[in-house]
Amino acid sequence: MHTCKGFTAAATAAGLKKADRLDLGLIFSQTPATVAGVFTTNKVQAAPVKLDKQRVNAGRARAIVVNAGNANCCTGDRGMADAEATAGCVALELGIGPEQVLVASTGVIGQYLPIDKIRTAVPGLVAGLNPNGFTDLARAMMTTDTVPKLARREVAAGGAVFTVMGVAKGAGMIRPDMATMLCFVVTDIAVGPAALRQALVRAADGSFNRITIDGDTSTNDTVLVLANGQSGIHADEGPVRQLFENALGDVLMDLARQVVKDGEGATKLVTVRVRGAGSDSDAVRVAQTVANSNLVKTAFFGQDANWGRILAAAGRAGADFDPEAVDLYFDDVQLVAAGTWCGPQAEALATAVLHRPEFTVTIDLKAGDGRAEMLTCDFSIDYVKINADYRS
Amino acid sequence: MHTCKGFTAAATAAGLKKADRLDLGLIFSQTPATVAGVFTTNKVQAAPVKLDKQRVNAGRARAIVVNAGNANCCTGDRGMADAEATAGCVALELGIGPEQVLVASTGVIGQYLPIDKIRTAVPGLVAGLNPNGFTDLARAMMTTDTVPKLARREVAAGGAVFTVMGVAKGAGMIRPDMATMLCFVVTDIAVGPAALRQALVRAADGSFNRITIDGDTSTNDTVLVLANGQSGIHADEGPVRQLFENALGDVLMDLARQVVKDGEGATKLVTVRVRGAGSDSDAVRVAQTVANSNLVKTAFFGQDANWGRILAAAGRAGADFDPEAVDLYFDDVQLVAAGTWCGPQAEALATAVLHRPEFTVTIDLKAGDGRAEMLTCDFSIDYVKINADYRS
Repeated sequence: MHTCKGFTAAATAAGLKKADRLDLGLIFSQTPATVAGVFTTNKVQAAPVKLDKQRVNAGRARAIVVNAGNANCCTGDRGMADAEATAGCVALELGIGPEQVLVASTGVIGQYLPIDKIRTAVPGLVAGLNPNGFTDLARAMMTTDTVPKLARREVAAGGAVFTVMGVAKGAGMIRPDMATMLCFVVTDIAVGPAALRQALVRAADGSFNRITIDGDTSTNDTVLVLANGQSGIHADEGPVRQLFENALGDVLMDLARQVVKDGEGATKLVTVRVRGAGSDSDAVRVAQTVANSNLVKTAFFGQDANWGRILAAAGRAGADFDPEAVDLYFDDVQLVAAGTWCGPQAEALATAVLHRPEFTVTIDLKAGDGRAEMLTCDFSIDYVKINADYRS
Repeated sequence: MHTCKGFTAAATAAGLKKADRLDLGLIFSQTPATVAGVFTTNKVQAAPVKLDKQRVNAGRARAIVVNAGNANCCTGDRGMADAEATAGCVALELGIGPEQVLVASTGVIGQYLPIDKIRTAVPGLVAGLNPNGFTDLARAMMTTDTVPKLARREVAAGGAVFTVMGVAKGAGMIRPDMATMLCFVVTDIAVGPAALRQALVRAADGSFNRITIDGDTSTNDTVLVLANGQSGIHADEGPVRQLFENALGDVLMDLARQVVKDGEGATKLVTVRVRGAGSDSDAVRVAQTVANSNLVKTAFFGQDANWGRILAAAGRAGADFDPEAVDLYFDDVQLVAAGTWCGPQAEALATAVLHRPEFTVTIDLKAGDGRAEMLTCDFSIDYVKINADYRS
């Protein structure tokens, strides 16, 4: 069951999406909680992002209200007022201070939030709060996602158990710079704001940043974590802190995988693993360039072991290596040795790997010890269809 | 007529492409000529690129042999030997030194060149050389291009006339880093190697670099220019030099437009114009990021005036500006004023612009005097189809 001690959630259909679908969700901590957040670095930031950045600085919050169907971005002063009004009416209904409520939005950019629909829906939303509401909440966040995304870890520590649970909505495509990624994590561990923020930044680096491009983010990308201490376990120092960081990292990585797997139109989940780079940062550059190449991704869709496109992408990544030393594998099948093709038998085996729903491409640059991994998906006809029709 | 004094060209079907199509071409200067070239900066470079880079250093060359169907890239020592053998048998047939022959290849990466087919075809190719052969040559270079690309300018200077004529093959998609762009220019002007090289670098910066990403190039990208002096006009200094540089720039820009317009699956030719940037380099960054955004390009395909995606792309480009000051236009229709939407009437007019085959998106960042333009195309379902099936 997707529950976490002292937290409730709910969702409702406020009429923000076209059909009568869940589109407004709420997470509530029954007691005061510590909060931390990481946000888009895009120059264009949605109103809810601006508001949350101010509010998480205080280190305490109790509720997150999220809507799909409208990003409340590029909406000027009215957008800020609408974000504040959303938080305000949730706070009023919950009987807490408005500064305790965070806001997140996803959907079309540049249209005003239909704030009256939200006001009308909030009382029912708050009345529906219950410990088992997280699956509905995850559904309410969906835009082009096809499945709700939840992950949960229970960890024993010193005779007690703490829980870390998260929900996420997908970034449409693999690069969160191109669509909105929202992720909310709740935990009943007790932790101070500074330690929570540090744990979140580390966990996000090891998970969502493995499916993104350094600093490339959408206007609304938000990851928030609330910790209410209801487990009675403290994570500020020592081995519990490490256990907590690991659990948080696991939950975020689980959600990140779900996000990629449900990428718009995706039919393959592909790990791009680079080793033997001159440095870890070189490895990251190569992994990112390969993982984001349209030509590589369309070849994955075509189930074509097109290693030439992979090497060409590696070659323009800005990393130093000798193309005539490179080895390349699809899962455990070596297709390129020292920069040249291993022949038709290897090609047939590699093509069989490409027919799997999940596989790993390993590129060994033979230039050092640097390594990195990126998760990506293929690039299909449906991706174009989805994004050509998105607003209409 | 696509001719240039003292130059001949020819093409033949050597059996490198699947059907019985033209796939091997030759350009020949009947007298010694000056040469200059610019090449891919990709770390992975095809054998013909490596060979040409050595040979253009001498500043003199008389022939260019080009094949489609095979990129002769990632082919190791055998690839280099095959490139030299191709040049060698052309040189023998023409009766010139092998160092006078340049080589270019485009097609699949990682397969050996079928050198026997080339050897067999060369005598017929050389026998077919004629002043009107450039259209056939342009056809022989095509891979996923749908039309041959030629451009020509005649310029009067001091009572005489000189000609600049070029052929190109498309970069599949708009970003030449993802497919091969080849361009060969011939001119009957007289010019030394240093001046020719300088003119070429300038002209390429103002044309092909307007449709590419700084330094992102494929394994085979090559632009070569041969100048044989047959017009009797000298371009090393003074006003004629400027006339020549302008004509060369015009020819390359004409070809660059043809390349974008014939982008794989493209249905729209879009100019992304950025003005009011803090600097020209900021303007270039924003123009490039918008022009290469998959979400922006799929919206163009969907004829959707999705300005939010354009602003979001601008926001992640790394340029400094205030999103709440930005204006945005589709042709002469203003859709965004000071970061917010101009309303349904402007939207209807902007949508009508999106239905045009060619239009301009203007982004005014209101941050300074920097400006830049990029040419791009839309991103269609056919792009994915073409690239998922390319090798099969």
